Amino acid sequence: MVGLWRRASAPIPTNIPSESEVIYLHERPLTSITSSTFKTRQEPLPKPNDLPTDMVLIRVLYISVDPAMRGWLSTRRSYIPPVKLNAVMRANGVGEVVYSTGNIRQGELVTGMFGWRDYIALPISKINRVRLPSSLAKQPSIILGVLGLTGLTAYFGLLRVGLPQKGNIVVVSAAAGATGSVVAQIAKNVCGCRVIGIAGGKEKCTYLKEELCIEAVDYKAEEGVFEGLQRELNGEGIDVYFDNVGGETLEAALGLLNLNARVVICGAISQYNTQDLKGPKNYMKLLVKRATMSGFLCYDYENSFTSARNDIGKWIQKGWIKTREHEIIGLENAPNALAALFKGENIGKIVVKVGDRNNGKLEMRAKL
Amino acid sequence: MVGLWRRASAPIPTNIPSESEVIYLHERPLTSITSSTFKTRQEPLPKPNDLPTDMVLIRVLYISVDPAMRGWLSTRRSYIPPVKLNAVMRANGVGEVVYSTGNIRQGELVTGMFGWRDYIALPISKINRVRLPSSLAKQPSIILGVLGLTGLTAYFGLLRVGLPQKGNIVVVSAAAGATGSVVAQIAKNVCGCRVIGIAGGKEKCTYLKEELCIEAVDYKAEEGVFEGLQRELNGEGIDVYFDNVGGETLEAALGLLNLNARVVICGAISQYNTQDLKGPKNYMKLLVKRATMSGFLCYDYENSFTSARNDIGKWIQKGWIKTREHEIIGLENAPNALAALFKGENIGKIVVKVGDRNNGKLEMRAKL
Repeated sequence: MVGLWRRASAPIPTNIPSESEVIYLHERPLTSITSSTFKTRQEPLPKPNDLPTDMVLIRVLYISVDPAMRGWLSTRRSYIPPVKLNAVMRANGVGEVVYSTGNIRQGELVTGMFGWRDYIALPISKINRVRLPSSLAKQPSIILGVLGLTGLTAYFGLLRVGLPQKGNIVVVSAAAGATGSVVAQIAKNVCGCRVIGIAGGKEKCTYLKEELCIEAVDYKAEEGVFEGLQRELNGEGIDVYFDNVGGETLEAALGLLNLNARVVICGAISQYNTQDLKGPKNYMKLLVKRATMSGFLCYDYENSFTSARNDIGKWIQKGWIKTREHEIIGLENAPNALAALFKGENIGKIVVKVGDRNNGKLEMRAKL
Repeated sequence: MVGLWRRASAPIPTNIPSESEVIYLHERPLTSITSSTFKTRQEPLPKPNDLPTDMVLIRVLYISVDPAMRGWLSTRRSYIPPVKLNAVMRANGVGEVVYSTGNIRQGELVTGMFGWRDYIALPISKINRVRLPSSLAKQPSIILGVLGLTGLTAYFGLLRVGLPQKGNIVVVSAAAGATGSVVAQIAKNVCGCRVIGIAGGKEKCTYLKEELCIEAVDYKAEEGVFEGLQRELNGEGIDVYFDNVGGETLEAALGLLNLNARVVICGAISQYNTQDLKGPKNYMKLLVKRATMSGFLCYDYENSFTSARNDIGKWIQKGWIKTREHEIIGLENAPNALAALFKGENIGKIVVKVGDRNNGKLEMRAKL
């Protein structure tokens, strides 16, 4: 009844377009993403008057760019099926409700698997309302990063799988990246661990040392990642290794484990663009060190998402977690944003700010 | 005082030699063991009259042949240091005390790290007394196998690391081998699991099916180990994978895990003879399946060895664990026995029966 009443009285915004712009998967990349991997097309958008009461119209504000998206482009089934050819690229997003006749108010922030597009009509059951702390109200993209799956992945992977104890040595790869930077800060500031971050290049290592106040190892340095890590450890071993990259870095860490170490497998970004995957050839170190290597998916902890978000929110307010985003402007730059992630061009979470196409222009375009 | 009294009255056997025959590491093998890897020499043995009261003289009856011994031949430090060049090859053994002035009686069975030799003088602190159930009293080699580190490795690896639940699907590689055959039988007969054993060749698979009453997959069959395992699983997945072999078989199992599976890393016999080690290139299945891969060493459970041996003894008496040994006669055949292990020529535990050199001849020589 409320729905009917709203339908009758809610003013219909005049600036909702009749079509949305979408980016779809045109060709599966064998290695790196190319200019023919994705293409753009227009798709019809339901008219507000035709919208069923259980659906809302959303203007997409930000879309998330994550390493796992590379996996969705291959034909291999992962924890979710691949994106089909010609289907809109799957992506998590945050948007603003622009038309609703149900319980959700116009203007409310919502998240969901919007995909790469600027507007979407979705059933209420497929979206989540966003409640941001007032201090973060002007930064809705944070719900895709540290308060979203990125932060939750760091939280559950470190605390439920890595099981760090005060005084442990925690090593994190891709430590300047979206997930790694949160892992490093929780380990140091919440768990009281000694934290070493691995990242590529001086700029990122300076960020780790000066902004996150952790130790840093540059895997691109001439000495090699094993030697760099060994030097930084200075005779000590790793208790928790949180791996986002795989490859040589994973091997280096396995070679420097302490007894009963925990290796958390969160990602393998160094391997996603290659057909010739490499496994850690020294995995028998797990035996020598009686260590454990575990995979996890943060969706498995869905029942604890609310309390985890509360924790993370508190830690942000206390200054224990600093966030940094790498914002790329314009939906049409989403493919470049994904490619940039694999080139390691970002510090912190990459988000794409979707331009308000209806205004006829985009605010600015980031140079990649 | 007891020692002094015994020293005065214990009759000194007349057949104790003045030298022992030992096999020492002559050259580290790059891949397979060759005829120049080991050499034989004589080493002086203390005279009974010169033996301190805290030492005993032991005639070695059986020596154990284990996959881990290959690792001790390389320069890489594992959980224990490598065997040094020109040092006697390290090996676990069971023997009979032939002279003692302390608390241990002559004729008692003892175990210890005797190495490849026929006689040894050792401090009492470095040996363990053997208490065999009366039904097994005539089979002292069992203390190297199912009642020794082999059986204990199976017991703790499966029960403490693999954590099988009733009805789980347990897959074991090298299932006709010493450890694998015990794992398979505990999983089936004690834990009530469905068990699939992987082994090479028809003879071993027949042994698994007809003697151990488990399912069998022949990794040497033309279809390949992944396909064989997939066919046998028939749409189901693996809950516990107990790995003794590494390589392609480990990859096949990782590709067929159930959610929350446990992979127990006990050995990697397919990799020990190679310089070009391979890691499991699909280790990211651990993430997809939220699975765990853990190494362990049975020495870590030393406090529970006695109760584990009691359990295993009971299970043998109930017929839940059948044992089979592959006995090789003559100390001089120890290098061949170790090589045979890596060629997969054995069913069950390989032991070397050390000939009583003092009799001047060996009972028989096994053809390898």
